[in-house]
Amino acid sequence: MSRSQVPQARAARLAVLEKVERRLAGFLTAERDHWVRVDPRGAVPVDAVTGLVAAGGKRLRPAFCVSGFLAAGGEAADEQLVVDCAAGIELVHTGALVHDDVLDASELRRGVPAVHTRESATHIASGWRGEPRRYGEGVAILSGALAQIYAERLVRDLPPVVRDLWGEMLTEIQMGQFLDMAVAAEGVIEPELSRWVAVCKSGRYSIHRPLLLGAAIAGRPDLAPAFEEYGEALGEAFQLRDDLIGVFGDSDAAGKPVGLDLEQHKMTLLLVEAAERDERVRKLISGNDWDTEEILDRLGESRLRIEQRIDELVARARTALERADLDDAWRAELGVMADEVAYRSR
Amino acid sequence: MSRSQVPQARAARLAVLEKVERRLAGFLTAERDHWVRVDPRGAVPVDAVTGLVAAGGKRLRPAFCVSGFLAAGGEAADEQLVVDCAAGIELVHTGALVHDDVLDASELRRGVPAVHTRESATHIASGWRGEPRRYGEGVAILSGALAQIYAERLVRDLPPVVRDLWGEMLTEIQMGQFLDMAVAAEGVIEPELSRWVAVCKSGRYSIHRPLLLGAAIAGRPDLAPAFEEYGEALGEAFQLRDDLIGVFGDSDAAGKPVGLDLEQHKMTLLLVEAAERDERVRKLISGNDWDTEEILDRLGESRLRIEQRIDELVARARTALERADLDDAWRAELGVMADEVAYRSR
Repeated sequence: MSRSQVPQARAARLAVLEKVERRLAGFLTAERDHWVRVDPRGAVPVDAVTGLVAAGGKRLRPAFCVSGFLAAGGEAADEQLVVDCAAGIELVHTGALVHDDVLDASELRRGVPAVHTRESATHIASGWRGEPRRYGEGVAILSGALAQIYAERLVRDLPPVVRDLWGEMLTEIQMGQFLDMAVAAEGVIEPELSRWVAVCKSGRYSIHRPLLLGAAIAGRPDLAPAFEEYGEALGEAFQLRDDLIGVFGDSDAAGKPVGLDLEQHKMTLLLVEAAERDERVRKLISGNDWDTEEILDRLGESRLRIEQRIDELVARARTALERADLDDAWRAELGVMADEVAYRSR
Repeated sequence: MSRSQVPQARAARLAVLEKVERRLAGFLTAERDHWVRVDPRGAVPVDAVTGLVAAGGKRLRPAFCVSGFLAAGGEAADEQLVVDCAAGIELVHTGALVHDDVLDASELRRGVPAVHTRESATHIASGWRGEPRRYGEGVAILSGALAQIYAERLVRDLPPVVRDLWGEMLTEIQMGQFLDMAVAAEGVIEPELSRWVAVCKSGRYSIHRPLLLGAAIAGRPDLAPAFEEYGEALGEAFQLRDDLIGVFGDSDAAGKPVGLDLEQHKMTLLLVEAAERDERVRKLISGNDWDTEEILDRLGESRLRIEQRIDELVARARTALERADLDDAWRAELGVMADEVAYRSR
């Protein structure tokens, strides 16, 4: 393929992603049908998962998984494996979001009430027994775990070497979530740790790992170093953009409340940058006199610096692509994807 | 093997179970070492899982998985698979317990504080930010999910047909948990549903499914019908005993508070039996005037009936063994295991 055929690379990806959507919908519909036959209530946890999947996420992880496979020259015979894997990644992500919203006490997700919020409201409206919060969060805990189990069922046929990558990715997600929560609770300022959490929690599993999984399914471990560099750089850019959206973004576009990161005392990279540079911010976030308004006022300079850092990271991601053994169409397409991720509005 | 060799069957099982313990300990130690190198805090979720594994559960599920394999004549070449699978089942169970204790607001497990209780206390003692309950439950959510991921990593090499059984088992656990919680919240009295929940949530995954997994690894699907009958009967007996211990048991022996099932408005089979027979109990549990003391006073007759039902179930389990194509030593050993499960004190 030549440079002029870029649209074909994208078209190939979209065609496989269409199959990913059908795989997800088919699997979830069959599960729902099965459990409703046991008891009508059986629909609740399946619908919690399906509702979030259908609420229109960015499908970033499936997109990078499928791109990794196609860019690596994956063969048609292995296409079903990459479809399963990409669908599985989306379900892993869905389960993590359902749990994450409980951890963060976040009430909105993708523009609709979070699972725990909606189920607590149902509990109250129905006049059921026990504590509504415990019930709602209970449904969220079980639905999140169910999404994870569904993901594992979808990737049943992955070969062992790919499963190892998969297992590492899943472990990292939980550990990243935990360290993120721990750092926020303790109020520690450790730039290195915060950077690691950002890389581990979001960057690595959003881009780098999915790309590597796709390349591994295609039998191209030789692409790992280039994809790692591209993925780590772009992953950090992804997370930095997330931080910016979380503080300065538009709530409607984001589909979740903005400003919540600050209210939650989240030690984002944005905040770490500000704390490293500005003594007053450092004092505000490390003492007991956290003041969201004043912190926000002092973040203007950091915002510019973070934008610069994003530019550098995108450049580094593109450089990694230059050195990789890829055809030109895919090199260009992955470059376009880098821009889309780093400069998105939600 | 002849009947006189029963101890050898047990010895063979214990030898494999010893390897299961080493597999669990080895895996968890390696994980801890890995994450502590990233950050000392990384030990927390791993320790939450390890602590519960090490607190000495009954290892019922590994025991039945290994017994299913050995009774089916599993070969030495496949032993590692059954060790992995049995270790994985124990971790699945561990993860479910960690989540279950949050769902039930249970503060004690296996004689030690539940994960969420201990972590909330740490949060308070350390003077950390945010709500202690959310932090403690957050650690429990993530640790439970981590246990599930570890389980999947352990069973990486299971062949597809065994993985399908595995996936069904895991899905059933979550669904059983959800329906159990939903029925308690709604206060519905549906004997069929409660029986199904008991079978699904506990019986099936404690005995029937582990046995079948072991037999499947040994390549003996022909044993499935007999193991299913044995397992379903014994599984119900297991759950009924659980109900009795939960209401009448000795708190020290049980390692968790007894009486909690009633306080939690849990629709146990014991309660369903009483409600079906006793109009007053039916009124007490379906209205808004739930009175734990009075309900407890009226459960004497039901207790006797449940003991009878357990006897019948054990007899049915033994009959199923008679018809199975097993050698005598294993038939006898599985009979002994039935007694141990049905007449245990914790």
